[in-house]
Amino acid sequence: MPELRKDPVVGRWVIIATDRARRPHDFHSEFRRAEGGFCPFCEGNEEATPPEILAYREPNSGPNQPGWRVRAVPNKFPALQVEGNLDKRGDGIYDLMTGVGAHEVIIECAQHEVNMADLPLANIREVLWAYRDRLVDLKKDPRLVHGLIFKNVGAPAGASLDHSHSQLIVTPVVPISIWEEMTGSLEFYNYRGRCIYCDMIQQELATDKRIVLDTPSFVVFCPYASRFPFEMCILPKNHSSHFENVPHQTIEEMGMVLKTILNKLKVALDDPPYNYVIHTAPFDSKDLTHYHWHLEIFPRLTRVAGFEWGSGFYINPVLPEQAAAFLREVEVSETRSVEV
Amino acid sequence: MPELRKDPVVGRWVIIATDRARRPHDFHSEFRRAEGGFCPFCEGNEEATPPEILAYREPNSGPNQPGWRVRAVPNKFPALQVEGNLDKRGDGIYDLMTGVGAHEVIIECAQHEVNMADLPLANIREVLWAYRDRLVDLKKDPRLVHGLIFKNVGAPAGASLDHSHSQLIVTPVVPISIWEEMTGSLEFYNYRGRCIYCDMIQQELATDKRIVLDTPSFVVFCPYASRFPFEMCILPKNHSSHFENVPHQTIEEMGMVLKTILNKLKVALDDPPYNYVIHTAPFDSKDLTHYHWHLEIFPRLTRVAGFEWGSGFYINPVLPEQAAAFLREVEVSETRSVEV
Repeated sequence: MPELRKDPVVGRWVIIATDRARRPHDFHSEFRRAEGGFCPFCEGNEEATPPEILAYREPNSGPNQPGWRVRAVPNKFPALQVEGNLDKRGDGIYDLMTGVGAHEVIIECAQHEVNMADLPLANIREVLWAYRDRLVDLKKDPRLVHGLIFKNVGAPAGASLDHSHSQLIVTPVVPISIWEEMTGSLEFYNYRGRCIYCDMIQQELATDKRIVLDTPSFVVFCPYASRFPFEMCILPKNHSSHFENVPHQTIEEMGMVLKTILNKLKVALDDPPYNYVIHTAPFDSKDLTHYHWHLEIFPRLTRVAGFEWGSGFYINPVLPEQAAAFLREVEVSETRSVEV
Repeated sequence: MPELRKDPVVGRWVIIATDRARRPHDFHSEFRRAEGGFCPFCEGNEEATPPEILAYREPNSGPNQPGWRVRAVPNKFPALQVEGNLDKRGDGIYDLMTGVGAHEVIIECAQHEVNMADLPLANIREVLWAYRDRLVDLKKDPRLVHGLIFKNVGAPAGASLDHSHSQLIVTPVVPISIWEEMTGSLEFYNYRGRCIYCDMIQQELATDKRIVLDTPSFVVFCPYASRFPFEMCILPKNHSSHFENVPHQTIEEMGMVLKTILNKLKVALDDPPYNYVIHTAPFDSKDLTHYHWHLEIFPRLTRVAGFEWGSGFYINPVLPEQAAAFLREVEVSETRSVEV
């Protein structure tokens, strides 16, 4: 059973998941490589994954059979385990709990497509629906308090398989990054009475220096204090703390926004490795006036070294204003349809 | 002039250093590689670096000439700039300041040695003295508030040159990682009246499950909530908040501890890429009863992917207790002399 342990000084939780481990002797400098040849995520290879939890499929096709468009399955090497009691206890000055949670893979397409940017718009929209549907379902489990959706593309971004996919890790504690955002935005709210993300949208649109895309319901910009070159943030214009509460029309528009952004990255940076992650409020909180869900996306062009690990400082060699100008100018066919 | 920008939500500072940038078109997926052939850090190539700031050298040798053992020079591509006023201002909801600070390289040996573990003990001790002497000197500058010493070894750990070296970045703000440690340890101190690091030393020695090395003045252990496989923490047994105040005898012993640990890593993990970093209290604070300086060292065996970036959670596939047992058993010749 995996274990969640808390750093006693800074309060950061770590998942100790030895089932995922190779033995110490195997821990040499080699990173895990993408497997070539057989792809367990392709249509027809459904038996290579654990049984599906959700699939959008043709009416006359059966579970774990071909005929699906988007498919969610448990991760074969899960960081957390869905069975078992949530047992919280202390060990002297330390705190731990059993590693209860969910770790799922969302397979984004049936054919072997490695680039999400190249998926049809309808397909990308269904991926976003799958994110939402899985969160809504997992939210019912009282042991679990937060769901993190993320995507690793390319080996430098941590991907071990290249077939387009995302992951979902649902945890019994709030991740420290979400906690920090919630604490910081609450402080701002208490002081100013406004959501800091809403203020950011206003200032970004007014100054128009870091905007990459502006659509009826979303703004995409390179954050003022971007950690990474060409980092972007997708913020919904309507204040909302929970991604899973997003209205139908907004998800549809978000599909187009995501496709446009991914195509801009692909063209501008020649298919870079990248990560994206959706930051959303914990399951057990009501609608929050101070927190605002968003998607953060960062191409992995620079290596993170000792200074960044040691300080939490980042060194970004590209001005966010220049990155935004560059990305804004990249023409991709979908941009027009979004802006109309 | 580089710029320091603050993330308005979480308060993390980012250094925007465009002088270090290549143009956007160059930002493709290639990581910077170690240069082969000519080494600017080798004895005889002193003109390849900016003029030295400090050098421990033979009595009859001149500055920037051969005859040195350890040498500190400004980084040729500095993230921060030592000249200029510290200008702090706002930009709507955002905060920024000029990127005043120091970025230095400590070249650890005159001959082309790539592995610090293989340096003679006297040499490693002089490296630690150089760390201390540079901090003591930079502390005099009232614009600067914190010094971070770190080391990147191997390309996956962010090193661009392989000649054994460390770096020092001195900033006009306290890095968020140090801030979080200081806040967390202060909270513990206010509640319990003790230093949390001193408590940790006590519990680690009492349980003896995660200890790698125990010497008269230091304890080295795999932290309870290790983020990375084989992560280690070197803590001085005598409470002290500032590394630069360390007594002579302690630095001498620390040299032996560091050499032993580096040799254990080298043997156990077959010369892994790694980072280490010294966490010490800000220049402008007096001795702190709640904060305790330490050195964190982590081999870079696993890739950090979207989940880690997005959540601040880490997935560690190796039990710290197993990592410690493994490292403890690795025999290196220096171990005995430390333990005696």
